[in-house]
Amino acid sequence: MKFVLVSTILAAFLITGPAAGDSGDGHNLMPAPAELSFGGGALVIDGSFSVSFDGYRESRLERAASRLLERISAQAGIIFIPAYDGIDGAGTVLSIRVDKAGEAVQSLHEDESYRLVIDGCGARLNSATPVGALRGIETFLQLIEPGPRGFAVPFVTIKDEPRFRWRGLLVDSCRHWLPPGVIHRTLDAMAAVKLNVLHWHLSEDQGFRVESKLFPKLQLKGSDGNYYTQEEIRAVVSHARDLGIRVVPEFDMPGHASAWLVGYPELGSAPGPYHIARRWGVFPPVLDPTREEVYAFLDKFIGEMTGLFPDEYFHIGGDEVVDDHWRANPRIQEFMVRRGIADSHALQTYFNGRVLKILQRHGKKMIGWDEIFHPELPHDIVVQSWRGRESLADGARKGYLGILSNGYYIDLFFHAADHYTVDPLGGPAAALSEEEKARILGGEACMWGELITPELIDSRIWPRTAAVAERFWSPAEITDVDDMYRRLEIQSRRLESLGLNHRAFTRVFLERLAGPGGSIEHLRILAAALEPVKDYTRHRTRDYTSHTPLNRLVDAIPSDSPFARRFNMSVERMLASREGWDLHKTEVTDLLAGLKANHAGLLPLLKSRAVLREIVPLSETVSRLAAAALEAIDSISAGIKPDDDWVGEVDGLLLAAEADKQPQHEVQIAILPVIKALVDRAGVQ
Amino acid sequence: MKFVLVSTILAAFLITGPAAGDSGDGHNLMPAPAELSFGGGALVIDGSFSVSFDGYRESRLERAASRLLERISAQAGIIFIPAYDGIDGAGTVLSIRVDKAGEAVQSLHEDESYRLVIDGCGARLNSATPVGALRGIETFLQLIEPGPRGFAVPFVTIKDEPRFRWRGLLVDSCRHWLPPGVIHRTLDAMAAVKLNVLHWHLSEDQGFRVESKLFPKLQLKGSDGNYYTQEEIRAVVSHARDLGIRVVPEFDMPGHASAWLVGYPELGSAPGPYHIARRWGVFPPVLDPTREEVYAFLDKFIGEMTGLFPDEYFHIGGDEVVDDHWRANPRIQEFMVRRGIADSHALQTYFNGRVLKILQRHGKKMIGWDEIFHPELPHDIVVQSWRGRESLADGARKGYLGILSNGYYIDLFFHAADHYTVDPLGGPAAALSEEEKARILGGEACMWGELITPELIDSRIWPRTAAVAERFWSPAEITDVDDMYRRLEIQSRRLESLGLNHRAFTRVFLERLAGPGGSIEHLRILAAALEPVKDYTRHRTRDYTSHTPLNRLVDAIPSDSPFARRFNMSVERMLASREGWDLHKTEVTDLLAGLKANHAGLLPLLKSRAVLREIVPLSETVSRLAAAALEAIDSISAGIKPDDDWVGEVDGLLLAAEADKQPQHEVQIAILPVIKALVDRAGVQ
Repeated sequence: MKFVLVSTILAAFLITGPAAGDSGDGHNLMPAPAELSFGGGALVIDGSFSVSFDGYRESRLERAASRLLERISAQAGIIFIPAYDGIDGAGTVLSIRVDKAGEAVQSLHEDESYRLVIDGCGARLNSATPVGALRGIETFLQLIEPGPRGFAVPFVTIKDEPRFRWRGLLVDSCRHWLPPGVIHRTLDAMAAVKLNVLHWHLSEDQGFRVESKLFPKLQLKGSDGNYYTQEEIRAVVSHARDLGIRVVPEFDMPGHASAWLVGYPELGSAPGPYHIARRWGVFPPVLDPTREEVYAFLDKFIGEMTGLFPDEYFHIGGDEVVDDHWRANPRIQEFMVRRGIADSHALQTYFNGRVLKILQRHGKKMIGWDEIFHPELPHDIVVQSWRGRESLADGARKGYLGILSNGYYIDLFFHAADHYTVDPLGGPAAALSEEEKARILGGEACMWGELITPELIDSRIWPRTAAVAERFWSPAEITDVDDMYRRLEIQSRRLESLGLNHRAFTRVFLERLAGPGGSIEHLRILAAALEPVKDYTRHRTRDYTSHTPLNRLVDAIPSDSPFARRFNMSVERMLASREGWDLHKTEVTDLLAGLKANHAGLLPLLKSRAVLREIVPLSETVSRLAAAALEAIDSISAGIKPDDDWVGEVDGLLLAAEADKQPQHEVQIAILPVIKALVDRAGVQ
Repeated sequence: MKFVLVSTILAAFLITGPAAGDSGDGHNLMPAPAELSFGGGALVIDGSFSVSFDGYRESRLERAASRLLERISAQAGIIFIPAYDGIDGAGTVLSIRVDKAGEAVQSLHEDESYRLVIDGCGARLNSATPVGALRGIETFLQLIEPGPRGFAVPFVTIKDEPRFRWRGLLVDSCRHWLPPGVIHRTLDAMAAVKLNVLHWHLSEDQGFRVESKLFPKLQLKGSDGNYYTQEEIRAVVSHARDLGIRVVPEFDMPGHASAWLVGYPELGSAPGPYHIARRWGVFPPVLDPTREEVYAFLDKFIGEMTGLFPDEYFHIGGDEVVDDHWRANPRIQEFMVRRGIADSHALQTYFNGRVLKILQRHGKKMIGWDEIFHPELPHDIVVQSWRGRESLADGARKGYLGILSNGYYIDLFFHAADHYTVDPLGGPAAALSEEEKARILGGEACMWGELITPELIDSRIWPRTAAVAERFWSPAEITDVDDMYRRLEIQSRRLESLGLNHRAFTRVFLERLAGPGGSIEHLRILAAALEPVKDYTRHRTRDYTSHTPLNRLVDAIPSDSPFARRFNMSVERMLASREGWDLHKTEVTDLLAGLKANHAGLLPLLKSRAVLREIVPLSETVSRLAAAALEAIDSISAGIKPDDDWVGEVDGLLLAAEADKQPQHEVQIAILPVIKALVDRAGVQ
């Protein structure tokens, strides 16, 4: 065995999770509760812990209590035996008192508030409804920590309720197929961070994912065999209800409709035949709004789906309609003239009006993307804003309900902080009246599916979505980004306990890339300094299709590198003051030395794996950047300005590393800005 | 942030998995096939890969092919789209040709052989039966590795068949409850290493885990509510059949019977009432062999179970009968006198004879532990030897079929190598004739459940059981322990891909012990140097009950520390030769320095967590041992014998560390022997 020396402090930095001494003075809850105050003491949680109920009871609460015990057992290794004759009944009791039944079908108006008091007399959780109790149970679980007397919950008084009523996550099961297990574990994680809407994107150009018994060609021709049976859908809806989560299905119409039309070309605006789309983007296939058969079809279809999805809202998509087929179809053009329909947007509005009537007949309210908005629509529709916060504020001003998704596109590889700092009531909405603001119901994180697989979706949703969930639940004033990241790491550990794979994923995937005989020792060091390129850059870089393997370094690494965040923070502190310099210099130097030396150790592996070969130059660049940063530190320490040759060379290197942002490997160097800052500092002394 | 310096090489050693340069010249398969030869080339596996069938077909094979694609997809990030119109059909094809249907109920005689040829013309898997194809598909999956041209399988010719027909894993669902998900993922892992029998231990003093519709008080009174519904059992049996795994249920009788008797005390030999046992060990409750009602009950019960468990064998346990209640019951004593039954063992034999007739009436053959053996039993019974290899050989000599479990008790925290070197045909069996040897059908690893939970069972079964599986499948000559460990690490990664948690478990559990604010930086270093105490020591140390929390350091760490194995190997090589000394000194010195420094960094965490406080002295001992070893190395390097004071002090330390083997924390220092060897060497120069 032979080892290239790995940097000493690097080892510590590569362990994600809070570092020793990192733990804040505040709480470790996420989302943060509306009101919280700690008392001075704690209740021990051991095998004699139990849950008691008072007031209203239902089976959903019993199941929640069972899950609570199971999760304590898994987290704390405590073994609960129901009705164990050896227990003396003297243990800590969580008394749950629920006032009344919740809504038969959970709506926007469900009361989710709860009050949790833990003191010397025990733990008492009070709520108006079972859903409030579910939220409080999640808080209780987050309070359990190991301490000097064993696992315990601190004395605390929490009064909590959500800031927004609609706190969603969009999961796109269409662009890549996601088996039911993925949806179930995602629901568990959503409940843990108090999200309450699963927006389930179920039809797209790339797939129709629901079994219809009335129109079986929808799934048989439009899904490649990958669809949810009605039984599987019922199981998801039922699991969601158990967790206090609404399921809002989206069937995109009239555009994004290729998959509908493969089996039923007669619904389309062009003659067909139609095919499942294999590329990403926006495509021409579109329903024909001029034919009564289309509405008859939708009436029956929506009626059938109503039996599966009890939620009061039904999402019709309505985004990105391409009107090529409308314009090319003389019959459609003639219809528009006859009816005085001015343009394609008006034709979509006509379509929406017809669909709205169908929905209303089936007792549903409409929700759709920005494009559905039209002042003739009733005020109980919800407009989901993907275009921007301006359109959200506009709608509210005009009396419409809205939710924000712009700023929460978690498929775009941004940092948690980027999403966290977007507030549905911020920006243009800040100028609204209180009445108008009340129309902004909340928001949704959107997990669009172009670049995910069942394996890697967890690492794209989590932990970042927990930060979005806090934005939707917690008071607007809670905006400390550093504290958010501290608690996000803690929450990330908790989510792993629920069965999510996002934490182990990078290691596991790097091991697969390295192969059975390969060590990931050096690969993980390089990976730690990298992040996927942001925004839509990956799509601009490579011609992705639904068939493109997702097995490269960019797919293995998180959007938000914990290593880079900590490294960048150390360099920033180092540059901020003389004390910071002295405090962080050893650490930063050590990390840079590790990064500098890494390339030599990594190179043989990179060269021997096709899938890794593309990052050879990148690995070398990181090594050279680290070397330059070390030289900059030496120069600053010595108080000697570097010579022009060095400056020229390093500027070239930095420029190349910048320009290197959008190459085939689709990753960027997450520590580049602070390295640049170090080099700049060397030059200005 | 503040970091105690972690040893440089330590970081590399803490990454489990093969180190760079570790990959052997041989293959990475586990179990090793009977015959294998590599050609010079490889077939690329990408999105155009497909499976074709020839010869006999059945739905089990179709499902196996789907799983194969799913697993390639998960491992290699390749996305398969069934019937994708864009595929040109030019990809690698795995052609599976099966000659004929397998047995309707898989038995001992199922043909599991297969032949796999991969060359320039493609991959061809031929087998007599679908079960053979399943085995070959697992081999094919193990062959896929990333390489210079992407993921690929090497040109190879493999002719393979198992050495033993009975290759089992006993899973004890009684002593701690294991939800169905645990059983399913265990089956997946068993199939991956070509085990073919799940021996499912379903009744015990601590729980009766099966739903009986005829006798519902069995589960309602005997299980604390934790039992498998008949539907859940059918799902397990069906999943097992899909994987070519038999399910042999064990209902232990007449002893280990407390849980039967809680609901049906009238079957017992004492008046009752009976209670579920909460402690471990052997208890007096025992069925009454003298009452016809007991046989009537068993007749109906076994009849009902026959509907659930199609396997030809039915395990009646039969071990460790305590005869207190028989001796104390005058009616039973009288019965024995009347029938001329000499003693309690004869009474058990009488009982077994009656049960045998019941089994035969239901078309079942009997299997039981050593104690059931009696020369009047028919020769198709199987005796499972837990007592030793002598009794196994004895049975074979007398014409009885047998399987070996002695030596494969994976609940006792031994090393993989300890089990790997036990051969069912070794020891006393080596002297048997070929005909007698043929009666030894194989063996079973036994996962007894006293110290497991659903969370930690994976880390106790895997990866060690893969080594046992190789012993049962592969040729007897394959005994290289170092190569076994090399391939075991590779197989361990593969098992993680199947959904097993054994690799992530230690980290996750240490994080839980450290709590939300705690780093595991130092805890994992200490943990790496430790292993649970071996054999039954934990039970001698602490009065475990079914209610004892399993959340201490000993529960978090694997039985076989990969770190310690590598460290020990380096020290051994260092001491073996002058070259070894030069080659390994830096590395060993560095590791020891890290271990020495670790205690100071770890102490604050240990002190602040009740559950970790017990290991404070141990952490200090490891640190002092490392210091002593460093001093020994210095002394050897300098060629100066240490003085008597030092020798006395270090001998005391070593003695204390030895004697410290069975304290409350139940762990031992896995690197102690090589530290002792270093110290000894210093003293003899």
